[in-house]
Amino acid sequence: MKIVFIGSGNVATHLAIAAKKEGHHILQIYSRSAENARCLAEKVNAKCTNRLSEINCFAEIYIFSIKDDVLGEVLSEMPATEGLWIHTAGSIPMNIFHPYHDRYGVLYPLQTLSKEREIDFEKIPLFIEANDPKVREQLQEFAGGLSPIVHYIESEKRRYLHLAAVFACNFVNHMYAIAAQLLENNQIPFDMLLPLIDETAAKIHQMHPREAQTGPAIRFDEQVMNRHIDLIDDPCIKELYLLISQSIYKYSLRQ
Amino acid sequence: MKIVFIGSGNVATHLAIAAKKEGHHILQIYSRSAENARCLAEKVNAKCTNRLSEINCFAEIYIFSIKDDVLGEVLSEMPATEGLWIHTAGSIPMNIFHPYHDRYGVLYPLQTLSKEREIDFEKIPLFIEANDPKVREQLQEFAGGLSPIVHYIESEKRRYLHLAAVFACNFVNHMYAIAAQLLENNQIPFDMLLPLIDETAAKIHQMHPREAQTGPAIRFDEQVMNRHIDLIDDPCIKELYLLISQSIYKYSLRQ
Repeated sequence: MKIVFIGSGNVATHLAIAAKKEGHHILQIYSRSAENARCLAEKVNAKCTNRLSEINCFAEIYIFSIKDDVLGEVLSEMPATEGLWIHTAGSIPMNIFHPYHDRYGVLYPLQTLSKEREIDFEKIPLFIEANDPKVREQLQEFAGGLSPIVHYIESEKRRYLHLAAVFACNFVNHMYAIAAQLLENNQIPFDMLLPLIDETAAKIHQMHPREAQTGPAIRFDEQVMNRHIDLIDDPCIKELYLLISQSIYKYSLRQ
Repeated sequence: MKIVFIGSGNVATHLAIAAKKEGHHILQIYSRSAENARCLAEKVNAKCTNRLSEINCFAEIYIFSIKDDVLGEVLSEMPATEGLWIHTAGSIPMNIFHPYHDRYGVLYPLQTLSKEREIDFEKIPLFIEANDPKVREQLQEFAGGLSPIVHYIESEKRRYLHLAAVFACNFVNHMYAIAAQLLENNQIPFDMLLPLIDETAAKIHQMHPREAQTGPAIRFDEQVMNRHIDLIDDPCIKELYLLISQSIYKYSLRQ
């Protein structure tokens, strides 16, 4: 299929590369930043532009993969096209397209994507939504070519999936970052933690996270918790320690 | 070596099983709860007691693996013995033994251990400390038999390692638990998140967590964050969302 990407960030980059590999023809990359557009365009042998008025009108799919805040504005400035319009955002309802186009949908890849890290697209669950059965069929075919894990999910539910992903990935990664900082401050190599981090993730393939919980907070081991809080300099991280510990203990009482 | 365990929790259980496998002789399990003592004793073919006065005095190692809050009290009630005394706690300084015994040390396994989950002890980094070179040698030999990853670390640094582990494991697991709860409330199966969780952990083997960060908070995508906060019912989880997001953004500015 002929595809135009609107956006050149992490998701657009991985999706464009995967689509190109799958034999699709990436016609064009649009980005507000000419440099970013050019950079991704080179990777997938596409044209590029930083003007919406120059968008190629002959693609079969237009993939909007830009910051949620600006999607509405970009849509209102898009030239009329024939092709299917889809976005890749977890939290934006599909009907954002309604005022602007008649065939549209969503393809939300549930994964943490960084430009610097290659990823096997076949391991990414893709969540699709479509505004009519024909679009759904087309989107199912496109998504199925990229990954064997394709689920249909409606906007209402997708936003909870996205919120859960923020906790399970973005917030988890921040916990790693805080741990890394604490170790760096004390000249302890971060890789000492890797077996623990791997086991923490592996464990919940077998146990529910509520059952997998260990540590001072669930034992309500106040001495340890107070000693920990004393070790933390940053008041914001201190507060986080306290709040997460309280939340762990509260969750344990609910069981 | 002949070993007595004081404690029968997650760490004592895994350590006793690993030591037994390695050919050590577990003489006795002590626990305040007779039932817990018996349960672990059966697994490792040991005697058991719930009275400190009945502790077997002929072991070569006494492993104290009990809640930090009660260790001091238990030590003060321990009968005199010849063997080496060690504890397994991340946050307790080695010299807690000083008033009670003359040969002592620490063996801190940096791992999340649940009774219900088997673990390959060879993948657990063990952090040891000893109060004299001979004890260190003895402890090094014992630890080295259990795991190929043995590091010497002093109490002062070990407590930071433990604090970092709380963030990288216990708090991470709570993020999984919150995500699970959000999905359950919306009838979405938790295993949809597993590829994301695995990749989040795998990524930081290659990238520093600060570079690996993705999501709305680091992009300061306010619309998404506000929509997320609106989706959360529990005020405590709402506050966590806000605080962690702010912290992610603050960390990104430091780079």
